Amino acid sequence: MNKKIKIGLLGSGTVGTGVIKVLLENVHEITQKIGREVAITKVLVRDLNKKRKIPSTCTIIDDFEEIINDDSIDIVVEVMGGENPAKEYMLRALEAGKHVVTANKDVVAKYGKLMFEAAEKHKVDFMFEASVGGGIPIITPLKQCLTANKILEVMGIVNGTTNYMLTKMTNEKLDYHTVLTEAQAKGYAESDPIADVGGLDAARKIAILSSIAFNTRVHLDDVYVEGITAITPEDIEYARELGYVIKLLAIAKDVPAYGIDVRVHPALVPNTHPLASVNDVFNAIFVKGNAVGETMFYGRGAGEGPTASAVVADIIDISRNIVHKTSGKISCTCFEDKMICPVEKSISAYYVRLLVKDEPGVLATIAGAFGNNQVSLNSVIQKRRVNGCAEIVLITHEVAQEHLAKASAIIKNLKDVTEIRNIIRVEAQRK
Amino acid sequence: MNKKIKIGLLGSGTVGTGVIKVLLENVHEITQKIGREVAITKVLVRDLNKKRKIPSTCTIIDDFEEIINDDSIDIVVEVMGGENPAKEYMLRALEAGKHVVTANKDVVAKYGKLMFEAAEKHKVDFMFEASVGGGIPIITPLKQCLTANKILEVMGIVNGTTNYMLTKMTNEKLDYHTVLTEAQAKGYAESDPIADVGGLDAARKIAILSSIAFNTRVHLDDVYVEGITAITPEDIEYARELGYVIKLLAIAKDVPAYGIDVRVHPALVPNTHPLASVNDVFNAIFVKGNAVGETMFYGRGAGEGPTASAVVADIIDISRNIVHKTSGKISCTCFEDKMICPVEKSISAYYVRLLVKDEPGVLATIAGAFGNNQVSLNSVIQKRRVNGCAEIVLITHEVAQEHLAKASAIIKNLKDVTEIRNIIRVEAQRK
Repeated sequence: MNKKIKIGLLGSGTVGTGVIKVLLENVHEITQKIGREVAITKVLVRDLNKKRKIPSTCTIIDDFEEIINDDSIDIVVEVMGGENPAKEYMLRALEAGKHVVTANKDVVAKYGKLMFEAAEKHKVDFMFEASVGGGIPIITPLKQCLTANKILEVMGIVNGTTNYMLTKMTNEKLDYHTVLTEAQAKGYAESDPIADVGGLDAARKIAILSSIAFNTRVHLDDVYVEGITAITPEDIEYARELGYVIKLLAIAKDVPAYGIDVRVHPALVPNTHPLASVNDVFNAIFVKGNAVGETMFYGRGAGEGPTASAVVADIIDISRNIVHKTSGKISCTCFEDKMICPVEKSISAYYVRLLVKDEPGVLATIAGAFGNNQVSLNSVIQKRRVNGCAEIVLITHEVAQEHLAKASAIIKNLKDVTEIRNIIRVEAQRK
Repeated sequence: MNKKIKIGLLGSGTVGTGVIKVLLENVHEITQKIGREVAITKVLVRDLNKKRKIPSTCTIIDDFEEIINDDSIDIVVEVMGGENPAKEYMLRALEAGKHVVTANKDVVAKYGKLMFEAAEKHKVDFMFEASVGGGIPIITPLKQCLTANKILEVMGIVNGTTNYMLTKMTNEKLDYHTVLTEAQAKGYAESDPIADVGGLDAARKIAILSSIAFNTRVHLDDVYVEGITAITPEDIEYARELGYVIKLLAIAKDVPAYGIDVRVHPALVPNTHPLASVNDVFNAIFVKGNAVGETMFYGRGAGEGPTASAVVADIIDISRNIVHKTSGKISCTCFEDKMICPVEKSISAYYVRLLVKDEPGVLATIAGAFGNNQVSLNSVIQKRRVNGCAEIVLITHEVAQEHLAKASAIIKNLKDVTEIRNIIRVEAQRK
């Protein structure tokens, strides 16, 4: 009855090392909390010859079959990352009746449905708290603590690399390329940074979050994505003058009549909003519910300790389920089919920066063109004059993307308009 | 098998009304999530003749015996507030084998042990998410999501009234009494405001939080308490000049050798700390764990919707336990006996504001007196000169309270010192 709960660990990189460390360091409390001992018995690695800090109680192997065929292993913990072979290993583990914990946002965002169905069919737990927001508890709060609410909106800073870069661009007035190079040198950005700066990483996370928040299944392909590559120091400076900071936001809203509006893009956030002061590699997720109102969850979005904290919490949860024979109790929360709101119908305010001829009447012409296309203006500032041109920055009221797109297509071709230099959404206004 | 889960609601004030509303509004999702219907069948009120918005499906009663003797009632939800008769009713409900949900911080802080023991003995759930931080999920995150960590520190703004007052004093440069009168007029402060401004309300909450965070049982009497009544606009202004804001903090730290250091007092918080931008009636709880690092939970600390959100989440959790026959699974987390750190041994930096003779050498004398008593100074600013006196503000390095107390007793009696005008702790420095 009191037999140890045994874990097969897939991967021994940063997160894997962290999981081993946390389980060892906090073993006393963890055993008390579960009521039974938990131990990693096998660790799957790619290269058996590489030197590693793995306790001698773990058998190091390089063949997954030694885990899948080991009936004594109750939980498979996947921290190898990437889509393949992680996805296949997890699926096989679930089918073999083993519980699975993963930190793998790629797989959860793309194959979540498959995983959940396999877990349900085989009456085991599939848990993935670490896949979003690293150490920040957000999956369990959404599934349990805020479950009394209809969630109206989830909005977060969920990518540490871009938040570090934007913070640095803002505080030190540096441009995108300088900051990227530095982030790469520090190891905060990868040599191919596109998944981060292009918004894909954040898109995976909001696909996962919105699925749980709205009790449905949002696929990665449903997410509209814009990255931060077009953000300039000028935009950041204008935003600052207007009382905003620029952040890469992942947003999901339940829009009546149109469905789930789910997107990732840079946005101007008012200084007074709690997300505005989330800086550097920190992440934060803002959740609005019909009963609770506004809540926010803040912490480190990545790293050995934070990610391990989330993975081990899932291990403890599953272990409690094993001890109490309650596996699979809260897994199925995505029970509704909901539409995805087309980006054209999605509503935002916008920041528009234009270069125009510095002549009387130009502003009136532009304002007129916006007005004729159902875009009304909130504020307009006329800035720097350069070589007979003037830079104008304006903030619109909230408007559907299709109207803004139409208006800007027309404005771009006005003879007095030299260039539309940037268009960035404005979010998180308190109403 | 599919019989309804039935609730007896004790109290129909703000929170009770909120609970009824949330259960009705979100009934579709809640039923899906539990897999069975939940309904309030009886509502206990004080005065049967008072008009109330209670659905006709609920029987309104004024005798608790009608709930305790009703075998069809599975869960008793206590939202009447106050110690008596709430405590007795909950205890009797647990003893009768009914699960209990409460929002009552008074009872949980003082009689938590009694309640947990009764729940364990009778194999029922006792849940109290709403007792701390209103709508902010914090009890479940501590029990589940962060459970892989050794918690090193919990620090929060957990009283909305004082946070509203301090925010207003800061932003509008008003004094304590003006702001209190206004808060009372708005209903944010009670006519007898002592539980809030004196720190007792926050003390109850940190007693509850620290019990869970440190797997032990911290009693209300263990908490060292100072309120905000001595905070002046001058202190707020000096703090601002030095880069701090003043907040009423509830703090619990696990101090090696001395035990749990648990206290409530105003403190200078650096502007860069996430707690510094938690304003008005919002609450936030900052948790530091040995794996996860720094996390923060933010939201509304009180009100009909937020509190109901937490109460109904507990109802859903208990209902899932009823459906899956898993009641009592995670209740017992306070398994360690830990010492309480005496306040004399508690470590903080301090802000000290003094009125001294405006003569050469005075500052050296004061610095010497601090130094002789093991208090080293971080920064000193000499401010306003008034009538031959000078006001000096200094910030110490971290020091045990007993040394600071001894130094200030000596300094107070120096012939060059007219008055020690205020001493406030400085917390939340990043190291």
